[in-house]
Amino acid sequence: MSNHSDVAIAEQLDAADPLAKFRQRFVIADPGLVYLDGNSLGRLPKTAANLAGQVVQEQWGKRLVRGWNEGWMDLSARVGAKIAQLIGAQSREVIVADSTSANLFKLAAAALAVQPSRRRILSDDLQFPSDLYILQGLIDLLGQGHRLEIVASPDGIHGPVEALLQRLGEDVALVVLSLTTFKSAYTYDMAALTAAIHKAGAMVLWDLSHAAGALPIDLNAAGADLAVGCTYKYLNGGPGAPAYLYIRQDLQERLANPISGWMGSNRPFEFALDYRPAAGLGRFLTGTPAIVSLALIEPGLDLLLEAGIEAVRAKSVRQTEYLIDLWEMLLAPLGYRLNSPRQTQRRGSHISLGHSEGLRIDQALIHDLCVLPDFRAPDNIRLGIAPLYTTFTELHAAAIALRAAIVERHYEKYPAAAPHVT
Amino acid sequence: MSNHSDVAIAEQLDAADPLAKFRQRFVIADPGLVYLDGNSLGRLPKTAANLAGQVVQEQWGKRLVRGWNEGWMDLSARVGAKIAQLIGAQSREVIVADSTSANLFKLAAAALAVQPSRRRILSDDLQFPSDLYILQGLIDLLGQGHRLEIVASPDGIHGPVEALLQRLGEDVALVVLSLTTFKSAYTYDMAALTAAIHKAGAMVLWDLSHAAGALPIDLNAAGADLAVGCTYKYLNGGPGAPAYLYIRQDLQERLANPISGWMGSNRPFEFALDYRPAAGLGRFLTGTPAIVSLALIEPGLDLLLEAGIEAVRAKSVRQTEYLIDLWEMLLAPLGYRLNSPRQTQRRGSHISLGHSEGLRIDQALIHDLCVLPDFRAPDNIRLGIAPLYTTFTELHAAAIALRAAIVERHYEKYPAAAPHVT
Repeated sequence: MSNHSDVAIAEQLDAADPLAKFRQRFVIADPGLVYLDGNSLGRLPKTAANLAGQVVQEQWGKRLVRGWNEGWMDLSARVGAKIAQLIGAQSREVIVADSTSANLFKLAAAALAVQPSRRRILSDDLQFPSDLYILQGLIDLLGQGHRLEIVASPDGIHGPVEALLQRLGEDVALVVLSLTTFKSAYTYDMAALTAAIHKAGAMVLWDLSHAAGALPIDLNAAGADLAVGCTYKYLNGGPGAPAYLYIRQDLQERLANPISGWMGSNRPFEFALDYRPAAGLGRFLTGTPAIVSLALIEPGLDLLLEAGIEAVRAKSVRQTEYLIDLWEMLLAPLGYRLNSPRQTQRRGSHISLGHSEGLRIDQALIHDLCVLPDFRAPDNIRLGIAPLYTTFTELHAAAIALRAAIVERHYEKYPAAAPHVT
Repeated sequence: MSNHSDVAIAEQLDAADPLAKFRQRFVIADPGLVYLDGNSLGRLPKTAANLAGQVVQEQWGKRLVRGWNEGWMDLSARVGAKIAQLIGAQSREVIVADSTSANLFKLAAAALAVQPSRRRILSDDLQFPSDLYILQGLIDLLGQGHRLEIVASPDGIHGPVEALLQRLGEDVALVVLSLTTFKSAYTYDMAALTAAIHKAGAMVLWDLSHAAGALPIDLNAAGADLAVGCTYKYLNGGPGAPAYLYIRQDLQERLANPISGWMGSNRPFEFALDYRPAAGLGRFLTGTPAIVSLALIEPGLDLLLEAGIEAVRAKSVRQTEYLIDLWEMLLAPLGYRLNSPRQTQRRGSHISLGHSEGLRIDQALIHDLCVLPDFRAPDNIRLGIAPLYTTFTELHAAAIALRAAIVERHYEKYPAAAPHVT
């Protein structure tokens, strides 16, 4: 083995890491656990742990319904404005509401409604399935002959850019893609693809769930139309925390929210019988927001803004490259395949390793080897890197554990069963 | 003034109240505040205050993504099953998800889809406006010529039962009503109206938001088709806590969720490209639930189940009657009108008092007189009674304050301005 596989190298990299100090801003309850699932559920920021008590005891408990006048009514927009800073949007272009899936439904329905002569929707087979399900359900509901075309990745790892470009045409209304895909971490070129989609007269909706908080995004520079994303991965907002949606400024007044609830009306507390949409993005709110979960999003955003997304990306690149180096030296000889792109620009912040015994290895990592990755069918062990708290030493430990799972035959204890839930 | 307006009577009623002990199970941060807005935001149960820390620090902080396997995945159904006990449903007929408005959208869309030859939807002008907005938006989205008919209350207080019955016919698909209406607390006869709606071949969707937790509801006995409701009023679930939906067992497999996200698919963690609905009610889930807000619903439900909804209703009736008595003696002579039904059976758990200076009186109550009601345009001062923690003494104090607001001219300090937000 080369020096690079030595733990001392990892320790040197940690010592030189300008973001190292951020790890102590998170609750690390079990320092022995190598947590590589921050791309599924980010860790708890210490300030969020304190804030939970304040929101529940001080705001709900003491201020009661007055809380709506003392910050809650503005919380969707205020938290949205902080997310906007991370994704290259103006503060009034992002709002927090509902789930990613519900937001996708709202935006896709709105986009189709303003393009009645176009009936095709493009996506790819690397897309997070819920997005495809939502589009399928919307098409069925509308009953207007829309068609969803799921373009196949050439290799299950890289986005089918050429095939998507070829499919663009006058009848395409909307292209829905994950900026970073959930299995391989393939990352599209947002600016180039948005430009091509616009040239064909279509609109684009980016799902930022696996990208936001891990790499710089510039929706405004790309001229992107629409975006959605979740807050509980790299944004560290907490389990199932409400999602966000983005609509480019000049589109906001043209689009109608199909789930037109009172929080999106222009004067919710006048209780008029007829719906009138709020000015701007506020119309895409629907019901009363889940305040406790919503409030807990803010501390994670503050940490990312303090660290700077460029610095986060720089460390993420160093860490994914380091992990790929370790894979090459330690793991490839044992049958592990790299199921993420090698090209840095096209790679997000997690590394997927395929192995014919992937599911059993995953079980061994969790139960015997103190590593918590996740598993995505059919054979992907997904190793998420959250630069604010993931250390190089952890990545080294994970590689050693992946090696031990095979060499020490830990995986043989486990039956090849249904995937566990993460 | 009769004895009845004496505070000693209120104290005797409190002393004899079998539910009095439940007040100490809630956080009462400011004992001097008469909080009569539990029908907008219920108080914080002490166990919820403790649970918040546990969910955030122990579950999110320590268990991290493993939380999904350790209770979070089942939480929507588990909390739903407890709500079911309060509303006369089977445990598999209620699930917690999204907001009331989003749930109404899902159920109304599903109901219309299975009745393609029927295009009329009936509601009333006492309905919480968000429900009307959602129906308007759904109709616009579908573009199939559905029509929403908002039947007018005869007096702004009582539901237009006769007019609704007359409008029923072969072309009515769906009737959407609040069991207890938000302004007057008028409460429909669910069993009788459901039967009449079914006789006309239509489906009914009850919004239980202002009724659940305040009075016994028996969806199964009525044979009701669909229901939605919020959890943050009499259920004491916390600000904006996720809502619930009910679908009668035999309808569940016939109905399709139009917002078909992954949590409603049959195997969310298989990540198949094609949506297949979960068996039963689970298909009406959409995105990842907001776990912290969702978990905090349970303590309030446990308190209601411990107290028993029949006992809660008995106290609620005693308290609304007591408040009406006080109104008659102390307030009617000062120009206050009773904007809630006098008939006990038709009255929920709040009392609305109209006054030409209603908005200014409301301001005086809040800022000068230590009473927190809410205000609903044009002139309703809404006094919510939550029997688990509202005392007779508080109701007495509120009546005295309402009197003082006029007699001592407190209201004159306040301009007649836009309604405050509550």
